[in-house]
Amino acid sequence: MGNKADLRGTAIGRFQPFHNGHLVLIKQILEDCSEALIVVGSAQLNYTMANPFTAGERVFMIHKALKDGGFDLSKILIIPLVDEENNAKWFSALASMLPPFNILYSGNHLVISLASQHLEVRPPRFERRKEFNGSYIRNRILNGQKWSDLVSRSVFEIINIIDGVNRVKTLAKYELERTKLYGS
Amino acid sequence: MGNKADLRGTAIGRFQPFHNGHLVLIKQILEDCSEALIVVGSAQLNYTMANPFTAGERVFMIHKALKDGGFDLSKILIIPLVDEENNAKWFSALASMLPPFNILYSGNHLVISLASQHLEVRPPRFERRKEFNGSYIRNRILNGQKWSDLVSRSVFEIINIIDGVNRVKTLAKYELERTKLYGS
Amino acid sequence: MGNKADLRGTAIGRFQPFHNGHLVLIKQILEDCSEALIVVGSAQLNYTMANPFTAGERVFMIHKALKDGGFDLSKILIIPLVDEENNAKWFSALASMLPPFNILYSGNHLVISLASQHLEVRPPRFERRKEFNGSYIRNRILNGQKWSDLVSRSVFEIINIIDGVNRVKTLAKYELERTKLYGS
Amino acid sequence: MGNKADLRGTAIGRFQPFHNGHLVLIKQILEDCSEALIVVGSAQLNYTMANPFTAGERVFMIHKALKDGGFDLSKILIIPLVDEENNAKWFSALASMLPPFNILYSGNHLVISLASQHLEVRPPRFERRKEFNGSYIRNRILNGQKWSDLVSRSVFEIINIIDGVNRVKTLAKYELERTKLYGS
Amino acid sequence: MGNKADLRGTAIGRFQPFHNGHLVLIKQILEDCSEALIVVGSAQLNYTMANPFTAGERVFMIHKALKDGGFDLSKILIIPLVDEENNAKWFSALASMLPPFNILYSGNHLVISLASQHLEVRPPRFERRKEFNGSYIRNRILNGQKWSDLVSRSVFEIINIIDGVNRVKTLAKYELERTKLYGS
Amino acid sequence: MGNKADLRGTAIGRFQPFHNGHLVLIKQILEDCSEALIVVGSAQLNYTMANPFTAGERVFMIHKALKDGGFDLSKILIIPLVDEENNAKWFSALASMLPPFNILYSGNHLVISLASQHLEVRPPRFERRKEFNGSYIRNRILNGQKWSDLVSRSVFEIINIIDGVNRVKTLAKYELERTKLYGS
Repeated sequence: MGNKADLRGTAIGRFQPFHNGHLVLIKQILEDCSEALIVVGSAQLNYTMANPFTAGERVFMIHKALKDGGFDLSKILIIPLVDEENNAKWFSALASMLPPFNILYSGNHLVISLASQHLEVRPPRFERRKEFNGSYIRNRILNGQKWSDLVSRSVFEIINIIDGVNRVKTLAKYELERTKLYGS
Repeated sequence: MGNKADLRGTAIGRFQPFHNGHLVLIKQILEDCSEALIVVGSAQLNYTMANPFTAGERVFMIHKALKDGGFDLSKILIIPLVDEENNAKWFSALASMLPPFNILYSGNHLVISLASQHLEVRPPRFERRKEFNGSYIRNRILNGQKWSDLVSRSVFEIINIIDGVNRVKTLAKYELERTKLYGS
Repeated sequence: MGNKADLRGTAIGRFQPFHNGHLVLIKQILEDCSEALIVVGSAQLNYTMANPFTAGERVFMIHKALKDGGFDLSKILIIPLVDEENNAKWFSALASMLPPFNILYSGNHLVISLASQHLEVRPPRFERRKEFNGSYIRNRILNGQKWSDLVSRSVFEIINIIDGVNRVKTLAKYELERTKLYGS
Repeated sequence: MGNKADLRGTAIGRFQPFHNGHLVLIKQILEDCSEALIVVGSAQLNYTMANPFTAGERVFMIHKALKDGGFDLSKILIIPLVDEENNAKWFSALASMLPPFNILYSGNHLVISLASQHLEVRPPRFERRKEFNGSYIRNRILNGQKWSDLVSRSVFEIINIIDGVNRVKTLAKYELERTKLYGS
Repeated sequence: MGNKADLRGTAIGRFQPFHNGHLVLIKQILEDCSEALIVVGSAQLNYTMANPFTAGERVFMIHKALKDGGFDLSKILIIPLVDEENNAKWFSALASMLPPFNILYSGNHLVISLASQHLEVRPPRFERRKEFNGSYIRNRILNGQKWSDLVSRSVFEIINIIDGVNRVKTLAKYELERTKLYGS
Repeated sequence: MGNKADLRGTAIGRFQPFHNGHLVLIKQILEDCSEALIVVGSAQLNYTMANPFTAGERVFMIHKALKDGGFDLSKILIIPLVDEENNAKWFSALASMLPPFNILYSGNHLVISLASQHLEVRPPRFERRKEFNGSYIRNRILNGQKWSDLVSRSVFEIINIIDGVNRVKTLAKYELERTKLYGS
């Protein structure tokens, strides 16, 4: 692989929310590479059940979790990215928003399909995938179950500061009523 | 609340179609406020099962129903609004298309979440919510059940003039065949 | 032309701002037709020198000017319309946002080209075209010259209420600095 | 119908992939008309289960299948078309991308609704609709069942050249994991 | 370069209109390659001075000019392409709409910049560049000067059939009046 | 102003390229606030004369310049932002991509107009505005004049690594030929 100092590694996620599994991934990237690029996907989505938090709130969580977690932030960039419907354009859309990078860390079959012709795609080291999982955590938030041990203390605090628990519950009510943005 | 003459109240709906429950809501707004702004949401959608009528057809129905219903149209504006995928931008998208307004009438949890930081959101007075309901009415149209008593006479006539009953039935066939816009 | 009661006539403009020439046009339409549809074009543009006012502010001006001018608002609809880059799609974009209409009033060569295959396009009766002109009025606002006699008293008041004179002057400074949204 | 030499007929499909039923349709058009326009719909979609192939790959398949099938390609145009969310604009979107045409061949209820006010829509002659069906073929590809007899030899070869069988299987895995473009 | 039968060559233009210089270019491609892909750029633009003709009309002109010019149309594809504002995404946008290709023929500095990292860009053989030039021809059409010798007879005929000369003159008047789509 | 530790300050620019004047601004923000948010505007634009560098390249320059300049990167976020045509939606578009912030640093009249109703807009401390200016620097790059003293050493190096000087010259040639993306 050559000199670690020559490599930039990229992780992509929606980070709804940023959890302990993501922390493990960032650590993996910084072991392999000199810099980590964290891409906050579906950046245009927010206030939906699957995407309750704005891109800015997600950037906020990631930044504070890494800072409080003792990460060297001079080696990390956090970049929001809006979706691109034409998948064949997705990789160049991604590349246009990032410094040059060498490795993409992803176990996502679509990401692998779209990116592996351009650069190395390396499988992420995930732990406790069942619990360290955005959908699982959002459901625990919704159901009033304990979720604080699945995310950094900083993420927990930010979600409380922005009243995120109530937001998730409100969005669930909204989607249950199946009324879209407007009533009928 | 001060002088009613100083207030403008906004109602938002898809109005697929405009029904008697909506009429009750417009009355409520005009009791509270000097002017009512009626926003026709998802204005870009039409010729789908959930959104059979164009924004223009919906404006037509609302205008005629209110006119024939004896409303004072000098106090009412009817404004189409296209969707905004980024919910955090939705309120400013709405505000950019309307005169200044003071109260939003909505029981929709998402609308309340997005708007209540900007202005007062007041619960609408709804009646017979099960029947005065767009989805319920579209289903009755589809199934050949009586629906004329759920909407204004003007709405009933317009839907007939534009051959709306057949349109709803055709769209149902189309979506049943699950062929999207194109066959496969 | 048949029965006036059967006709709906449409006027299209950017209304930056709504001025006395536009009032003449609305009168013309209501002489010919039973209803007038007023389309506020380039609805997505605002806070630029050529388009200083939001669509909502323009709707506000038009509505108040017609109301104070004694027009019968039960015969008038005011509809914002966003631009469509593909001109060959423009007419159907327009039609999808309006009740059915019979005559388009326009002296604009492009509008005539795009619409005359679909319906009658009738030349507007314009007066004092040099002064009753949006660009001319915006320039007078900018240069501190008298412009109150070129618009309805209601339009004048609304522009003052929203601090529109300073907005026009600020936008002029901005565009002079040619710095786009961001500095360089 | 007049002189066949004066007519252009249009077929619309997503062609995921182009199969023997489509071949029958093109033959039908060329029996009726002097030229056939083949519109590759949802051109912006690719690398999804329902739309595994890019518009360019679909153009490639159609062109080669017709060439190898002995069709006169001087009478055929193959045109990609991106989706238009506002159905009321769809027909003019289509027309803006094609030479003038006289007949649309479609059994799709929505296409018929949207196009029949503009021109003749003629029902396609389909054979073996259960097997000559995109969804059916994609499922056979996915499940490792024989599908080579449902498409032209050229289509079969191209799908193999672009490693399309593995692509379909990968996309199925991806959608099963329901992880959208990004993991969670 | 290997076997000509293995190569596909692409030409990109706006073709407003398709002229004799373009014919020379298609000949060059078919001398070098087994197939030519002709991309009709800015496909979403029409009814402007710089882009008077719709993509469909341009496809029509190209197809008829090549057919009447004795070209083997089984070796040629004509594909409309809408613009992509993010230039870094442009090449993948192009590639997603075309069969695989090996050489891009362009003297355009931006196209060369964007494409040469992906494949060979070969300079086009142009003749009489001053006259075989879209802008020059549009100006001659506008000014009533002879232009029939600069385009194929088929192109000349199509422009007359669609009343293109009057369209160019009307659009010039429109843009002179600087009134954008709507008057002011 | 209260405790500096409680404040987040935002700077917005296109950073084509990031220069010494921008460095002064970031210093100012970090004197006033505990964290600086640097927004890379017009993120979708690149490979044009006014916007030669991709958003990713600009993020790269800013990050390396700040790192090599001894800034504490744990206090800094660098966020790309695509343009929003509806200016009245711009502020909420911006806010949706950023952590909560308290002060916007801008001397831009449009930014002040759009943001000052939402939060404090503070004038940036600029030095040598004539030379520390993107347009001025791009012109010096184009004309082969010395510009290395106007940017950080890191920015100078990155522009060389990505062959930026030739890119600027090529884009100038392209725009001179006024051929847009495609020739005519």
